[in-house]
Amino acid sequence: MTRFRVNAFGISADGFGAGAEQSLDNPMGVGGLAMHGWAFETKTFRAMHGGESGSTGVDEEFAARSFENVGAWILGRNMFGPVRGSWGDESWKGWWGDTPPYHVPVFVLTHYERPPLEMKGGTTFYFVTEGIEEAAKRAAAAAGGRDVRIGGGVSTVQQYLKAGVIDEMHLVVSPVLLGAGEKFFGNLDLVKMGFRVTRHVMSEKVMHVVMERKR
Amino acid sequence: MTRFRVNAFGISADGFGAGAEQSLDNPMGVGGLAMHGWAFETKTFRAMHGGESGSTGVDEEFAARSFENVGAWILGRNMFGPVRGSWGDESWKGWWGDTPPYHVPVFVLTHYERPPLEMKGGTTFYFVTEGIEEAAKRAAAAAGGRDVRIGGGVSTVQQYLKAGVIDEMHLVVSPVLLGAGEKFFGNLDLVKMGFRVTRHVMSEKVMHVVMERKR
Repeated sequence: MTRFRVNAFGISADGFGAGAEQSLDNPMGVGGLAMHGWAFETKTFRAMHGGESGSTGVDEEFAARSFENVGAWILGRNMFGPVRGSWGDESWKGWWGDTPPYHVPVFVLTHYERPPLEMKGGTTFYFVTEGIEEAAKRAAAAAGGRDVRIGGGVSTVQQYLKAGVIDEMHLVVSPVLLGAGEKFFGNLDLVKMGFRVTRHVMSEKVMHVVMERKR
Repeated sequence: MTRFRVNAFGISADGFGAGAEQSLDNPMGVGGLAMHGWAFETKTFRAMHGGESGSTGVDEEFAARSFENVGAWILGRNMFGPVRGSWGDESWKGWWGDTPPYHVPVFVLTHYERPPLEMKGGTTFYFVTEGIEEAAKRAAAAAGGRDVRIGGGVSTVQQYLKAGVIDEMHLVVSPVLLGAGEKFFGNLDLVKMGFRVTRHVMSEKVMHVVMERKR
Protein backbone atom coordinates (compact mmCIF):
# COMPACT_ATOMS: atom_id res chain seq x y z
CA MET A 1 0.00 0.00 0.00
CA THR A 2 1.21 3.50 -0.77
CA ARG A 3 2.44 5.36 2.29
CA PHE A 4 3.01 9.09 2.54
CA ARG A 5 6.45 9.87 3.90
CA VAL A 6 8.52 12.84 4.90
CA ASN A 7 12.22 12.00 4.88
CA ALA A 8 15.45 13.67 5.83
CA PHE A 9 13.66 16.82 6.89
CA GLY A 10 16.15 19.06 8.66
CA ILE A 11 15.18 21.09 11.69
CA SER A 12 17.31 23.36 13.83
CA ALA A 13 17.84 22.98 17.58
CA ASP A 14 15.44 25.89 18.04
CA GLY A 15 12.75 24.21 15.97
CA PHE A 16 12.92 25.87 12.58
CA GLY A 17 12.40 23.89 9.38
CA ALA A 18 13.53 26.71 7.11
CA GLY A 19 15.34 29.99 7.52
CA ALA A 20 13.83 33.42 6.93
CA GLU A 21 13.90 35.34 3.63
CA GLN A 22 14.03 32.55 1.07
CA SER A 23 15.51 33.78 -2.20
CA LEU A 24 17.35 32.67 -5.31
CA ASP A 25 20.63 32.92 -3.41
CA ASN A 26 19.24 31.36 -0.24
CA PRO A 27 16.81 28.62 -1.29
CA MET A 28 16.46 27.42 2.30
CA GLY A 29 16.37 30.87 3.82
CA VAL A 30 19.01 32.60 5.90
CA GLY A 31 21.01 29.97 7.78
CA GLY A 32 18.87 27.17 6.36
CA LEU A 33 21.73 25.38 4.64
CA ALA A 34 23.36 24.68 7.99
CA MET A 35 20.59 22.20 8.76
CA HIS A 36 21.58 20.07 5.79
CA GLY A 37 25.33 19.78 6.25
CA TRP A 38 24.90 16.17 7.40
CA ALA A 39 23.29 15.28 4.04
CA PHE A 40 25.74 17.05 1.76
CA GLU A 41 28.56 14.80 2.87
CA THR A 42 26.74 11.54 2.23
CA LYS A 43 27.56 9.20 -0.62
CA THR A 44 23.94 9.39 -1.82
CA PHE A 45 23.93 13.17 -2.04
CA ARG A 46 27.33 13.36 -3.73
CA ALA A 47 26.40 10.71 -6.29
CA MET A 48 23.18 12.59 -6.98
CA HIS A 49 25.20 15.63 -7.94
CA GLY A 50 27.70 13.71 -10.04
CA GLY A 51 30.34 13.53 -7.33
CA GLU A 52 32.18 10.59 -5.86
CA SER A 53 32.99 9.14 -2.42
CA GLY A 54 31.10 10.65 0.52
CA SER A 55 30.23 9.36 3.99
CA THR A 56 28.91 5.83 4.50
CA GLY A 57 27.74 5.75 8.13
CA VAL A 58 24.38 6.37 9.77
CA ASP A 59 23.81 9.61 7.86
CA GLU A 60 24.35 7.83 4.56
CA GLU A 61 21.97 5.06 5.59
CA PHE A 62 19.21 7.60 6.18
CA ALA A 63 20.04 9.58 3.02
CA ALA A 64 19.84 6.43 0.88
CA ARG A 65 16.67 5.29 2.60
CA SER A 66 15.02 8.64 1.86
CA PHE A 67 15.01 7.78 -1.87
CA GLU A 68 14.11 4.10 -1.59
CA ASN A 69 10.71 2.91 -2.76
CA VAL A 70 9.59 6.43 -3.68
CA GLY A 71 7.22 6.41 -6.66
CA ALA A 72 6.18 10.06 -6.66
CA TRP A 73 6.92 13.32 -4.87
CA ILE A 74 4.87 16.28 -3.72
CA LEU A 75 6.53 19.67 -3.38
CA GLY A 76 5.20 23.00 -2.21
CA ARG A 77 5.50 25.86 -4.62
CA ASN A 78 8.39 27.46 -2.74
CA MET A 79 10.39 24.29 -2.78
CA PHE A 80 10.15 24.26 -6.55
CA GLY A 81 11.43 27.78 -6.86
CA PRO A 82 11.52 31.40 -5.75
CA VAL A 83 9.01 32.55 -8.41
CA ARG A 84 5.82 33.97 -6.85
CA GLY A 85 2.48 34.67 -8.53
CA SER A 86 1.98 33.52 -12.14
CA TRP A 87 4.64 31.47 -13.90
CA GLY A 88 5.47 34.29 -16.36
CA ASP A 89 7.53 33.01 -19.31
CA GLU A 90 7.80 29.58 -17.68
CA SER A 91 11.57 29.72 -17.89
CA TRP A 92 11.92 28.58 -14.25
CA LYS A 93 12.40 24.81 -14.24
CA GLY A 94 13.30 24.14 -10.62
CA TRP A 95 16.50 24.48 -8.59
CA TRP A 96 18.05 21.32 -9.96
CA GLY A 97 19.10 21.91 -13.58
CA ASP A 98 18.17 19.68 -16.54
CA THR A 99 18.27 16.40 -14.62
CA PRO A 100 16.50 16.77 -11.26
CA PRO A 101 17.26 14.14 -8.59
CA TYR A 102 13.69 12.78 -8.49
CA HIS A 103 13.45 10.43 -11.54
CA VAL A 104 9.71 9.97 -10.93
CA PRO A 105 6.61 12.17 -11.28
CA VAL A 106 6.71 15.24 -9.03
CA PHE A 107 3.52 17.10 -8.12
CA VAL A 108 4.01 20.79 -7.39
CA LEU A 109 1.31 22.59 -5.38
CA THR A 110 0.45 25.96 -6.91
CA HIS A 111 -2.39 28.37 -7.43
CA TYR A 112 -1.28 29.03 -11.02
CA GLU A 113 -1.79 26.62 -13.91
CA ARG A 114 1.11 25.43 -15.97
CA PRO A 115 1.51 22.48 -18.37
CA PRO A 116 3.53 19.45 -17.22
CA LEU A 117 7.26 19.87 -17.55
CA GLU A 118 9.25 16.84 -18.64
CA MET A 119 12.87 16.87 -17.57
CA LYS A 120 15.76 14.52 -18.23
CA GLY A 121 16.18 11.35 -16.18
CA GLY A 122 12.53 10.49 -15.70
CA THR A 123 11.37 13.50 -13.68
CA THR A 124 8.17 15.19 -14.83
CA PHE A 125 6.81 18.16 -12.88
CA TYR A 126 3.01 18.31 -12.74
CA PHE A 127 1.46 21.52 -11.46
CA VAL A 128 -1.59 20.92 -9.28
CA THR A 129 -4.00 23.79 -8.67
CA GLU A 130 -6.83 21.79 -7.10
CA GLY A 131 -5.39 21.57 -3.59
CA ILE A 132 -3.44 19.17 -1.42
CA GLU A 133 -5.97 16.32 -1.39
CA GLU A 134 -6.07 16.21 -5.18
CA ALA A 135 -2.27 16.28 -5.34
CA ALA A 136 -2.14 13.39 -2.86
CA LYS A 137 -4.60 11.40 -4.96
CA ARG A 138 -2.70 11.99 -8.20
CA ALA A 139 0.67 11.28 -6.59
CA ALA A 140 -0.60 8.02 -5.07
CA ALA A 141 -1.91 6.93 -8.48
CA ALA A 142 1.36 7.83 -10.15
CA ALA A 143 3.42 6.05 -7.47
CA GLY A 144 2.08 2.70 -8.64
CA GLY A 145 2.17 1.00 -5.26
CA ARG A 146 5.37 2.65 -4.11
CA ASP A 147 5.43 5.47 -1.55
CA VAL A 148 4.78 9.16 -2.01
CA ARG A 149 7.42 11.41 -0.51
CA ILE A 150 6.34 14.85 0.59
CA GLY A 151 9.45 16.95 0.10
CA GLY A 152 8.37 20.15 1.81
CA GLY A 153 8.55 22.95 2.65
CA VAL A 154 7.34 23.43 6.17
CA SER A 155 3.93 24.78 5.24
CA THR A 156 3.27 21.88 2.84
CA VAL A 157 4.20 19.30 5.48
CA GLN A 158 2.02 21.03 8.06
CA GLN A 159 -0.96 21.06 5.70
CA TYR A 160 -0.59 17.34 5.03
CA LEU A 161 -0.15 16.60 8.74
CA LYS A 162 -3.34 18.48 9.55
CA ALA A 163 -5.14 16.58 6.77
CA GLY A 164 -4.06 13.29 8.39
CA VAL A 165 -2.26 12.16 5.24
CA ILE A 166 1.28 11.54 6.50
CA ASP A 167 2.20 8.07 7.78
CA GLU A 168 5.88 8.52 8.57
CA MET A 169 8.31 11.35 9.22
CA HIS A 170 12.06 11.17 9.46
CA LEU A 171 13.30 14.40 11.04
CA VAL A 172 16.94 15.35 11.43
CA VAL A 173 17.71 17.70 14.29
CA SER A 174 20.93 19.68 13.80
CA PRO A 175 22.76 21.45 16.63
CA VAL A 176 22.38 24.87 15.02
CA LEU A 177 20.35 27.95 15.91
CA LEU A 178 18.38 29.78 13.24
CA GLY A 179 16.62 32.33 15.43
CA ALA A 180 14.01 33.08 12.77
CA GLY A 181 12.23 31.35 9.92
CA GLU A 182 9.44 28.80 9.73
CA LYS A 183 8.82 26.80 12.91
CA PHE A 184 8.47 23.18 11.93
CA PHE A 185 6.00 22.08 14.60
CA GLY A 186 3.94 25.24 14.93
CA ASN A 187 1.02 24.34 17.14
CA LEU A 188 0.69 20.79 15.88
CA ASP A 189 0.16 18.09 18.52
CA LEU A 190 1.83 15.08 16.93
CA VAL A 191 1.00 12.82 19.87
CA LYS A 192 -2.70 13.58 19.51
CA MET A 193 -2.37 12.85 15.80
CA GLY A 194 -1.16 9.37 16.68
CA PHE A 195 2.55 9.72 15.98
CA ARG A 196 5.06 7.75 18.05
CA VAL A 197 8.84 7.76 17.83
CA THR A 198 9.73 4.36 16.39
CA ARG A 199 13.45 4.84 15.89
CA HIS A 200 16.18 7.26 16.79
CA VAL A 201 19.85 7.20 15.96
CA MET A 202 22.55 9.71 16.76
CA SER A 203 25.24 10.34 14.20
CA GLU A 204 28.29 12.45 14.96
CA LYS A 205 26.54 15.48 13.50
CA VAL A 206 22.81 15.12 14.04
CA MET A 207 19.92 13.31 15.71
CA HIS A 208 17.75 11.20 13.43
CA VAL A 209 14.20 10.71 14.70
CA VAL A 210 11.66 8.53 12.88
CA MET A 211 8.02 8.86 13.90
CA GLU A 212 5.15 6.83 12.55
CA ARG A 213 1.39 7.09 12.75
CA LYS A 214 -0.95 4.12 12.89
CA ARG A 215 -3.74 4.31 10.34
CA MET B 1 32.75 37.15 37.24
CA THR B 2 29.41 35.57 37.98
CA ARG B 3 27.74 34.11 34.93
CA PHE B 4 24.10 33.15 34.63
CA ARG B 5 23.72 29.62 33.33
CA VAL B 6 21.01 27.21 32.33
CA ASN B 7 22.25 23.61 32.44
CA ALA B 8 20.94 20.20 31.52
CA PHE B 9 17.62 21.64 30.40
CA GLY B 10 15.71 18.90 28.62
CA ILE B 11 13.63 19.61 25.55
CA SER B 12 11.64 17.19 23.40
CA ALA B 13 12.13 16.66 19.68
CA ASP B 14 8.99 18.71 19.14
CA GLY B 15 10.34 21.61 21.17
CA PHE B 16 8.64 21.32 24.55
CA GLY B 17 10.51 22.11 27.74
CA ALA B 18 7.78 20.71 30.00
CA GLY B 19 4.72 18.56 29.58
CA ALA B 20 1.15 19.70 30.09
CA GLU B 21 -0.82 19.49 33.36
CA GLN B 22 1.94 19.71 35.95
CA SER B 23 0.81 18.16 39.24
CA LEU B 24 2.06 16.50 42.41
CA ASP B 25 2.19 13.19 40.56
CA ASN B 26 3.64 14.67 37.39
CA PRO B 27 6.11 17.41 38.43
CA MET B 28 7.32 17.79 34.85
CA GLY B 29 3.90 17.51 33.27
CA VAL B 30 2.50 14.66 31.21
CA GLY B 31 5.36 12.93 29.41
CA GLY B 32 7.88 15.38 30.83
CA LEU B 33 9.94 12.75 32.64
CA ALA B 34 10.88 11.14 29.33
CA MET B 35 13.05 14.15 28.54
CA HIS B 36 15.22 13.45 31.55
CA GLY B 37 15.92 9.74 31.16
CA TRP B 38 19.48 10.54 30.07
CA ALA B 39 20.13 12.29 33.40
CA PHE B 40 18.59 9.70 35.69
CA GLU B 41 21.16 7.14 34.67
CA THR B 42 24.19 9.28 35.32
CA LYS B 43 26.57 8.78 38.22
CA THR B 44 25.97 12.37 39.35
CA PHE B 45 22.22 11.97 39.52
CA ARG B 46 22.34 8.61 41.26
CA ALA B 47 24.85 9.84 43.83
CA MET B 48 22.63 12.86 44.45
CA HIS B 49 19.79 10.55 45.40
CA GLY B 50 21.93 8.28 47.55
CA GLY B 51 22.43 5.66 44.87
CA GLU B 52 25.57 4.11 43.50
CA SER B 53 27.16 3.41 40.11
CA GLY B 54 25.52 5.11 37.10
CA SER B 55 26.74 6.04 33.64
CA THR B 56 30.12 7.71 33.17
CA GLY B 57 30.16 8.84 29.53
CA VAL B 58 29.19 12.08 27.83
CA ASP B 59 25.89 12.31 29.69
CA GLU B 60 27.67 12.04 33.03
CA GLU B 61 30.19 14.67 31.99
CA PHE B 62 27.38 17.13 31.31
CA ALA B 63 25.45 16.14 34.44
CA ALA B 64 28.53 16.71 36.62
CA ARG B 65 29.34 19.97 34.87
CA SER B 66 25.84 21.26 35.52
CA PHE B 67 26.62 21.43 39.26
CA GLU B 68 30.18 22.72 39.02
CA ASN B 69 30.97 26.24 40.15
CA VAL B 70 27.35 27.00 41.00
CA GLY B 71 27.08 29.42 43.95
CA ALA B 72 23.33 30.04 43.86
CA TRP B 73 20.19 28.93 42.04
CA ILE B 74 17.05 30.63 40.83
CA LEU B 75 13.85 28.61 40.47
CA GLY B 76 10.42 29.53 39.20
CA ARG B 77 7.57 28.97 41.61
CA ASN B 78 6.31 25.90 39.75
CA MET B 79 9.69 24.27 39.86
CA PHE B 80 9.65 24.58 43.63
CA GLY B 81 6.27 22.95 43.91
CA PRO B 82 2.69 22.45 42.77
CA VAL B 83 1.25 24.86 45.36
CA ARG B 84 -0.47 27.84 43.71
CA GLY B 85 -1.53 31.12 45.31
CA SER B 86 -0.52 31.80 48.92
CA TRP B 87 1.76 29.42 50.79
CA GLY B 88 -0.97 28.33 53.22
CA ASP B 89 0.45 26.47 56.21
CA GLU B 90 3.93 26.56 54.65
CA SER B 91 4.20 22.78 54.93
CA TRP B 92 5.43 22.48 51.32
CA LYS B 93 9.22 22.42 51.37
CA GLY B 94 10.04 21.53 47.77
CA TRP B 95 10.07 18.28 45.80
CA TRP B 96 13.35 17.11 47.23
CA GLY B 97 12.85 16.04 50.87
CA ASP B 98 14.91 17.29 53.83
CA THR B 99 18.21 17.50 51.95
CA PRO B 100 17.72 19.16 48.55
CA PRO B 101 20.45 18.62 45.94
CA TYR B 102 21.41 22.32 45.79
CA HIS B 103 23.64 22.85 48.87
CA VAL B 104 23.72 26.62 48.21
CA PRO B 105 21.20 29.48 48.46
CA VAL B 106 18.20 29.01 46.17
CA PHE B 107 16.02 31.96 45.19
CA VAL B 108 12.41 31.07 44.41
CA LEU B 109 10.36 33.52 42.33
CA THR B 110 6.90 34.04 43.79
CA HIS B 111 4.18 36.62 44.25
CA TYR B 112 3.59 35.51 47.84
CA GLU B 113 5.89 36.34 50.74
CA ARG B 114 7.35 33.60 52.88
CA PRO B 115 10.28 33.55 55.32
CA PRO B 116 13.53 31.87 54.27
CA LEU B 117 13.52 28.10 54.66
CA GLU B 118 16.73 26.49 55.82
CA MET B 119 17.11 22.86 54.79
CA LYS B 120 19.75 20.28 55.53
CA GLY B 121 22.98 20.14 53.52
CA GLY B 122 23.46 23.86 52.99
CA THR B 123 20.36 24.65 50.94
CA THR B 124 18.32 27.67 51.99
CA PHE B 125 15.26 28.67 49.98
CA TYR B 126 14.68 32.42 49.77
CA PHE B 127 11.34 33.60 48.43
CA VAL B 128 11.65 36.66 46.20
CA THR B 129 8.54 38.73 45.50
CA GLU B 130 10.26 41.75 43.91
CA GLY B 131 10.70 40.27 40.42
CA ILE B 132 13.33 38.55 38.33
CA GLU B 133 15.87 41.37 38.29
CA GLU B 134 15.93 41.54 42.09
CA ALA B 135 16.25 37.76 42.30
CA ALA B 136 19.19 37.89 39.88
CA LYS B 137 20.86 40.59 41.96
CA ARG B 138 20.42 38.69 45.22
CA ALA B 139 21.52 35.40 43.67
CA ALA B 140 24.64 36.99 42.18
CA ALA B 141 25.54 38.47 45.58
CA ALA B 142 24.98 35.13 47.29
CA ALA B 143 27.01 33.24 44.70
CA GLY B 144 30.19 34.95 45.87
CA GLY B 145 31.91 34.98 42.49
CA ARG B 146 30.65 31.61 41.41
CA ASP B 147 27.89 31.20 38.82
CA VAL B 148 24.14 31.46 39.21
CA ARG B 149 22.23 28.56 37.74
CA ILE B 150 18.71 29.25 36.57
CA GLY B 151 16.95 25.94 37.05
CA GLY B 152 13.68 26.65 35.28
CA GLY B 153 10.97 26.12 34.42
CA VAL B 154 10.37 27.24 30.87
CA SER B 155 8.64 30.50 31.73
CA THR B 156 11.40 31.50 34.15
CA VAL B 157 14.13 30.80 31.58
CA GLN B 158 12.21 32.75 28.93
CA GLN B 159 11.82 35.74 31.22
CA TYR B 160 15.54 35.79 31.97
CA LEU B 161 16.39 35.38 28.28
CA LYS B 162 14.19 38.34 27.38
CA ALA B 163 15.83 40.37 30.14
CA GLY B 164 19.24 39.62 28.60
CA VAL B 165 20.52 38.02 31.79
CA ILE B 166 21.53 34.53 30.61
CA ASP B 167 25.10 33.96 29.40
CA GLU B 168 25.06 30.26 28.67
CA MET B 169 22.52 27.52 28.04
CA HIS B 170 23.12 23.80 27.86
CA LEU B 171 20.06 22.19 26.27
CA VAL B 172 19.52 18.46 25.92
CA VAL B 173 17.31 17.41 23.04
CA SER B 174 15.69 14.00 23.56
CA PRO B 175 14.17 11.93 20.74
CA VAL B 176 10.71 11.97 22.28
CA LEU B 177 7.44 13.64 21.31
CA LEU B 178 5.36 15.45 23.90
CA GLY B 179 2.67 16.89 21.65
CA ALA B 180 1.60 19.44 24.24
CA GLY B 181 3.09 21.44 27.09
CA GLU B 182 5.32 24.50 27.27
CA LYS B 183 7.30 25.29 24.12
CA PHE B 184 10.86 26.04 25.14
CA PHE B 185 11.72 28.58 22.44
CA GLY B 186 8.34 30.27 22.02
CA ASN B 187 8.96 33.25 19.80
CA LEU B 188 12.44 33.98 21.09
CA ASP B 189 15.10 34.75 18.47
CA LEU B 190 18.24 33.44 20.15
CA VAL B 191 20.45 34.45 17.22
CA LYS B 192 19.31 38.05 17.51
CA MET B 193 19.99 37.87 21.25
CA GLY B 194 23.59 37.03 20.43
CA PHE B 195 23.64 33.31 21.19
CA ARG B 196 25.89 30.99 19.21
CA VAL B 197 26.30 27.24 19.50
CA THR B 198 29.74 26.74 21.00
CA ARG B 199 29.66 23.01 21.56
CA HIS B 200 27.56 20.02 20.67
CA VAL B 201 28.00 16.40 21.56
CA MET B 202 25.81 13.43 20.77
CA SER B 203 25.45 10.72 23.36
CA GLU B 204 23.70 7.45 22.64
CA LYS B 205 20.47 8.88 24.02
CA VAL B 206 20.43 12.62 23.41
CA MET B 207 21.93 15.66 21.71
CA HIS B 208 23.76 18.08 24.00
CA VAL B 209 23.88 21.65 22.68
CA VAL B 210 25.74 24.43 24.46
CA MET B 211 25.04 28.00 23.39
CA GLU B 212 26.73 31.10 24.70
CA ARG B 213 26.07 34.77 24.45
CA LYS B 214 28.78 37.43 24.32
CA ARG B 215 28.25 40.23 26.80
